[in-house]
Amino acid sequence: MSTIQKSVDNGVNVAALLGAREALSKTPEAAQFKWRASVKWVNGTHSMTRVEGFYGLGTEQRHKTVFSFEADHPEIFASADRGATPVELVLAGLASCLTAGVAAVAQNRGIQLRSVESSLEGKMDIRGILGIDSDVRNGYDDIKVTFKIDADGSKEDIEALVAQSQKRSAVYDIITNPVNVTVQVA
Amino acid sequence: MSTIQKSVDNGVNVAALLGAREALSKTPEAAQFKWRASVKWVNGTHSMTRVEGFYGLGTEQRHKTVFSFEADHPEIFASADRGATPVELVLAGLASCLTAGVAAVAQNRGIQLRSVESSLEGKMDIRGILGIDSDVRNGYDDIKVTFKIDADGSKEDIEALVAQSQKRSAVYDIITNPVNVTVQVA
Repeated sequence: MSTIQKSVDNGVNVAALLGAREALSKTPEAAQFKWRASVKWVNGTHSMTRVEGFYGLGTEQRHKTVFSFEADHPEIFASADRGATPVELVLAGLASCLTAGVAAVAQNRGIQLRSVESSLEGKMDIRGILGIDSDVRNGYDDIKVTFKIDADGSKEDIEALVAQSQKRSAVYDIITNPVNVTVQVA
Repeated sequence: MSTIQKSVDNGVNVAALLGAREALSKTPEAAQFKWRASVKWVNGTHSMTRVEGFYGLGTEQRHKTVFSFEADHPEIFASADRGATPVELVLAGLASCLTAGVAAVAQNRGIQLRSVESSLEGKMDIRGILGIDSDVRNGYDDIKVTFKIDADGSKEDIEALVAQSQKRSAVYDIITNPVNVTVQVA
């Protein structure tokens, strides 16, 4: 098993992650993270979000660079389409979370990945957000994620990778289970 | 009221949105949207998401440009930090959704906005995703959104804007209520 793992490189440092697991199981306070974003309205439905600092391992942290995301509504909603819609950003979060998980689990299980692709589709009845029918929810009715994975493993191995990634995915949990959100005006 | 509205310009075409509401209340099938994203694994926890086409108003639609999002994990997780984390992308989605809503509601209510900023913070105990304690959830424990708005309106008007945006927000609904997500391997 260890011989197989040595020849596998998915670019994930599993030893470091296992070390973190060991360390954080003894110091739960270091595992308390705060992820942040700040947003500025540009015009109309167009906004710019910046992601830079976060808190974790007991101290303030900083990404190597500032990441920014433009969001907008498309032209069919009489907007300028200067960015993805907010609900597409959520799909990007889900997709990237599951994909990172697949790579980490594959590394841990000694499975070499060659390519991992997925397509996501979220169904939404926009009568909800337009306030046409109060029985229609604002958000997605359901989301389907389909992976296509080329890897040194059986179909069962690959399905198990995806299942384990799903089981440990932060964004999968955020979307499938309720999260308490407080919105206030300063 | 109409006189007030004429002098207000937040860049949102409310007449078009009200027209869409009128039209879609008569043709609910046109209100069935499918939002999409496709994701490619790059290396390690680094991935690239593309957003381009979607389905709505009974036909395939396309954004004016392709929007792409890099995601990764930070260096403290032994990753390369080449993009925001997936959970930060979710914050960007929430923030941009609420911000677009504030602009649209303000336009509809004849309130001129000068600036809209918000900061978001999501708390997460990463013992969940590391599999240290099965009683700890993978996703956010809670998210706090704080708006700072400069507008031609009273404090009460501004608080009501934010409350109405929250009430109609697709991403707020996705995060605070359960969404069914199916993950499969092709």
